[in-house]
Amino acid sequence: MSFNRVAIIGVGHIGSSIARGLRQHGLATQLVAFDASPEARARLADLGIVDEVAESATAAVQGADLVFLCMPVGAIGAVAAEIGPHLAARTIVTDVGSVKGAVVAAVCPHIPAGVHFIPGHPIAGTELSGPDSGFADLFANRWCILTPLPGGDEAATARLEALWEALGSHVERMEVAHHDMVLAITSHLPHIIAYSIVSTAGDMEDVTQSEIIKFSAGGFRDFTRIAASNPIMWRDIFLNNRDAVLEILGRFSEDLAMLQRAIRWGDGETLEAVFTRSREIRRSIVSAGQDTATPNFGRKP
Amino acid sequence: MSFNRVAIIGVGHIGSSIARGLRQHGLATQLVAFDASPEARARLADLGIVDEVAESATAAVQGADLVFLCMPVGAIGAVAAEIGPHLAARTIVTDVGSVKGAVVAAVCPHIPAGVHFIPGHPIAGTELSGPDSGFADLFANRWCILTPLPGGDEAATARLEALWEALGSHVERMEVAHHDMVLAITSHLPHIIAYSIVSTAGDMEDVTQSEIIKFSAGGFRDFTRIAASNPIMWRDIFLNNRDAVLEILGRFSEDLAMLQRAIRWGDGETLEAVFTRSREIRRSIVSAGQDTATPNFGRKP
Repeated sequence: MSFNRVAIIGVGHIGSSIARGLRQHGLATQLVAFDASPEARARLADLGIVDEVAESATAAVQGADLVFLCMPVGAIGAVAAEIGPHLAARTIVTDVGSVKGAVVAAVCPHIPAGVHFIPGHPIAGTELSGPDSGFADLFANRWCILTPLPGGDEAATARLEALWEALGSHVERMEVAHHDMVLAITSHLPHIIAYSIVSTAGDMEDVTQSEIIKFSAGGFRDFTRIAASNPIMWRDIFLNNRDAVLEILGRFSEDLAMLQRAIRWGDGETLEAVFTRSREIRRSIVSAGQDTATPNFGRKP
Repeated sequence: MSFNRVAIIGVGHIGSSIARGLRQHGLATQLVAFDASPEARARLADLGIVDEVAESATAAVQGADLVFLCMPVGAIGAVAAEIGPHLAARTIVTDVGSVKGAVVAAVCPHIPAGVHFIPGHPIAGTELSGPDSGFADLFANRWCILTPLPGGDEAATARLEALWEALGSHVERMEVAHHDMVLAITSHLPHIIAYSIVSTAGDMEDVTQSEIIKFSAGGFRDFTRIAASNPIMWRDIFLNNRDAVLEILGRFSEDLAMLQRAIRWGDGETLEAVFTRSREIRRSIVSAGQDTATPNFGRKP
């Protein structure tokens, strides 16, 4: 499943983790990377996690048999337009964006005949950003979703699938629209809620910021982790998965209004029933190996 | 700051952690406990973390110079009514409830003259429940809020303060109403939001429960931890801090609607500004030692 020359465009948390993982597992003969930020390119050269730091996206993809697009999804269309004419036949192009419908719409028109574009999305990452923050086993035991397009090349998809498995991931195939709805509930809603609650806490008049920070162990601090994620990346995700996110936000607001009404009217039975059911979902996530069983995420005082 | 006979009524996660902490630090000559659940009493006898398991709350408080009330806040008034006539003069009575106004209203009428009632609230805990789940250093480096009542005995308050410090906590004094507002934003809102989002995810038709569990590492799993907390305890907190929680929920819904509108209308500037600010609050919480600096809470794949 290894490749000859792999180009990574966009070398932040995910791109740099892919670079480290490919090298650690010996999956690429040659690794070349480009990032739009001159600071990131300079840092990349210092880190030495790739064989070559290219000075442009088009230079990076010259001769590549695999191209990873790892920039914020709002920037992906322009990059596809730029590199499209420089892609050799039989090259596999994939991405790691948290939105697939908008990415397919932005990228497909620029992919020449004979090049295999296979949208992808590893469900992995931390709240950190930038080339320094990546690590080789970020994808171990995590899921990676591929959304191959109708009529796509099965051998190319199988090859990309094998690559993700070699990085430690479990791979699931899914339709583009379904991916965007699954991620809207499992990832995009949690993030917009976390950003919103942190914003609410930041605007209190009667409670000081110092109090919010001191007493955050009561629950608030858990939300601040994902609310510390890359602002540009998340801005682009929400702008590019608008319909699914708005649908899920509508459902969430209804459910929250129901709980709010139960609090107002002293309906303890409704609260207890909803709270009891939540415990089951937590247990299932822990049983499935998707979170630690250690209390408090294993954090030490 | 040590006590002669300490009675703990309600021996779940917090009560059993207090018992373990007092014993480990040699802060009580004799430790006696009672729990309304016969199973918890039996388990307590097996665990051997107290000197005596009483068969009633009144038996537990006989001769005690310090009484901890550690049951769900909805049950605290009835227990206070039961033990009130059996409290000796100069006994200190305190509690650990996440709501202070309703606790003061429920407990005060039953406290005899000469007995010192000092409401308290350690900002500590995990998502676990029951006597097995406690541990001695749960309160280390965490804050404990005391809300001494007007005209209360300063020497008694100072003694209780010293006890919490001996358990490893930092102590802050606060007015009752202010406590309830601070906790509404730092703890109660995060919990009702977490319960609500888990409920929304549980009701999806187009996305299977299996998919929600598999792909929960995208953010959702973080919310399920606090949504796995004790349902009875949290039912009682919401019913007993109604006004502050409804006020904060109103603010949260406004802020979320603002973000939702920005998504609908493609207003990336608003999203980016809110998301960027959130990073700062996360950094402050980590700098203040209230959360780990390790990415992803230090969880391993």
